Amino acid sequence: MSQPHKLCMIPELPVSKHVSEHFVVILGPIEFHEDVLDAMSTPATSHVDPLFVPIFGESIELLRKVLLTKDAQPFVVAGSGTLGWDMMVNLIERDDEVLVINTGYFGDHLGECLEVYGAKVTHLRAPIGSRPSLEDLEQVLTGKKYKMVTVTHVDTSTGVLADIKGVAKVVKSISPETIVVVDGVCSVGSEEIRFDEWNLDVVITASQKALGVPPGLGIVVASQHAMKIFKSRKTPVASYYSNWNKWLPIMNAYEARKPAYFATPAVQLIYALHTSLKQITAQSMDSRFEQHRQVSQKFKNAITELGLKQLAVSDEAAANGMTAIWLPDGVQVSDIVPSLAAKGVQIAGGLHKECAAKYFRIGHMGISVTEPQRGHIDKVIESLATTLKELKSKA
Amino acid sequence: MSQPHKLCMIPELPVSKHVSEHFVVILGPIEFHEDVLDAMSTPATSHVDPLFVPIFGESIELLRKVLLTKDAQPFVVAGSGTLGWDMMVNLIERDDEVLVINTGYFGDHLGECLEVYGAKVTHLRAPIGSRPSLEDLEQVLTGKKYKMVTVTHVDTSTGVLADIKGVAKVVKSISPETIVVVDGVCSVGSEEIRFDEWNLDVVITASQKALGVPPGLGIVVASQHAMKIFKSRKTPVASYYSNWNKWLPIMNAYEARKPAYFATPAVQLIYALHTSLKQITAQSMDSRFEQHRQVSQKFKNAITELGLKQLAVSDEAAANGMTAIWLPDGVQVSDIVPSLAAKGVQIAGGLHKECAAKYFRIGHMGISVTEPQRGHIDKVIESLATTLKELKSKA
Repeated sequence: MSQPHKLCMIPELPVSKHVSEHFVVILGPIEFHEDVLDAMSTPATSHVDPLFVPIFGESIELLRKVLLTKDAQPFVVAGSGTLGWDMMVNLIERDDEVLVINTGYFGDHLGECLEVYGAKVTHLRAPIGSRPSLEDLEQVLTGKKYKMVTVTHVDTSTGVLADIKGVAKVVKSISPETIVVVDGVCSVGSEEIRFDEWNLDVVITASQKALGVPPGLGIVVASQHAMKIFKSRKTPVASYYSNWNKWLPIMNAYEARKPAYFATPAVQLIYALHTSLKQITAQSMDSRFEQHRQVSQKFKNAITELGLKQLAVSDEAAANGMTAIWLPDGVQVSDIVPSLAAKGVQIAGGLHKECAAKYFRIGHMGISVTEPQRGHIDKVIESLATTLKELKSKA
Repeated sequence: MSQPHKLCMIPELPVSKHVSEHFVVILGPIEFHEDVLDAMSTPATSHVDPLFVPIFGESIELLRKVLLTKDAQPFVVAGSGTLGWDMMVNLIERDDEVLVINTGYFGDHLGECLEVYGAKVTHLRAPIGSRPSLEDLEQVLTGKKYKMVTVTHVDTSTGVLADIKGVAKVVKSISPETIVVVDGVCSVGSEEIRFDEWNLDVVITASQKALGVPPGLGIVVASQHAMKIFKSRKTPVASYYSNWNKWLPIMNAYEARKPAYFATPAVQLIYALHTSLKQITAQSMDSRFEQHRQVSQKFKNAITELGLKQLAVSDEAAANGMTAIWLPDGVQVSDIVPSLAAKGVQIAGGLHKECAAKYFRIGHMGISVTEPQRGHIDKVIESLATTLKELKSKA
């Protein structure tokens, strides 16, 4: 970083030359495309610059394409995915009942966020590696009226995939006005999400996962039903920075290709977001979902062949963008993570408070999946096999 | 951004060759150093990577050097400067009395933020271009007890510089326990701030102003007195994402060179912050303050020679990092801004609601000041002179 140098353009460099010796397959930040990284170093640009305004405006539109929604309202705000939770509470007033479908660490904390803003939270939990059944959900919903049901699409702590289509169907059939919130921080861009078709109300995500953009943007997409509920609030929104009343005029202005000001947008991150969204939407979302399913299957088959077991107890409850894997007997997180790092592959340890030391996690999202010529997934499998052999021979 | 290309290094390019044809002298984002922009495109790096942890840790330490404080607590959070206001409310409980020393747009909105969280806000205002006198402040403070006094160091809407040293002295002499909050979004790195010596409690800032880093980081630095008041809160903190109870362990961990997780840090922005803070602290803060004073004086002299008048009514109330200038008769914002933009110089229009159409604003902060070989300020003066001549000949 210390040498002065400047950007230069080398057009049409074949992707194969980009294969890096070291890469990350944690659960985000994921690997970033070279063009996305270049966009991060866009020279100083005013947030009201006529060059920047359409970049921000089009990014808002492209998010709708990624979520397969015609008219939901995206919010793109400087912050982390956790800020997305704070933005969800625009739909909550004190003493509102909320059901949290909880499959791990992120369900716990999402519930904690809701409670800070006065919601009455009920958790519907399942054992580690499973997800609550739709029958359980139906039973809970018939017992009490909830203003909001939240579901973590992929709980990064367990690699469990929720059936958000089924959840929304059950919720809307019992209580059409109930708001269905999907925490899609670890799923938007890697798991199938059909916002309009599945009748979702809010999807929360962040830049650094399957959207393939460095961390620093919280993203929330809200249905018109959610916007209507928001507009009919009886009490003021409980926070300032996250207030949709502040952000809605900004989003509307930029989408209309006009600048507006509430808080300075993260210009360079939005250039990077735009670059990545253009790449993502260059193919159909269906084909992107399918690529992630296929690579996930390939990876999970390889894991099984290595004699390893996943935390997810069934195929249908296993995420397509990541895998959480129990450590074999006698192997510690502190053995396997550095050993893979030495081979150039950065993976993650466990996170769930009840068993963090007993498993590890590997992400397979974004360009590591959609650009197989980078060789990431093959190298992960190969390095994992070698590492396990080495650790066994030492034991 | 649409052409595939990658970064390449051209080492030892003399800085003079970096002088760009186009640059921004708005009030942030300011111009960024090439090394800072390169740090923005740091490849994917885990927020718990042993390479990243000391970068974040040292950034926290370097912020203390910039603020001239021995033991104040920095918080560095993904978000904008406006998020810094949300973080200030960790010190506020419902019905707390707060005095806002108001010199423009940002005083109004800071007060609005405090009211969202239940504070009882009193504004101490002055006419546009002036600042409330210390005598006025003394009188207000003797009439009522305030838990907090806030002061916008440089209100970007007017270019008025507050006397934060004098304010803190008056506040602490009348009521030592009252918290002195400085909104330093447009002053940290360009105006003299002596955190410990001047007895400040909170300084709020953002990455994209004189700290010279792209937008996306909210930064708050709190004195041990403020931390003590925070820890003695009787009611829970009113927000989730901004809660110091969440962030303090994270800051402590990274400073101790250990990773920790609440929300994913904006890794690339923190690499950029680290790069810029290393550059800033490579010289003494005193010499940085003096550079900004000298360049400001030179710029203001040039403005006066061009027959222009500042909004700031006195030299001592004029910021050193920016100048707000009344438009000459017959000249519109819509004339002057595009005319300068055509010459490669991006300036800003007015912002104060009472007179936005009657003035324009120019920033002189960061590398535009500390690296005169870039020629920014000279080119601004020259282009402004030419533009005024052109506009007059058209009139």
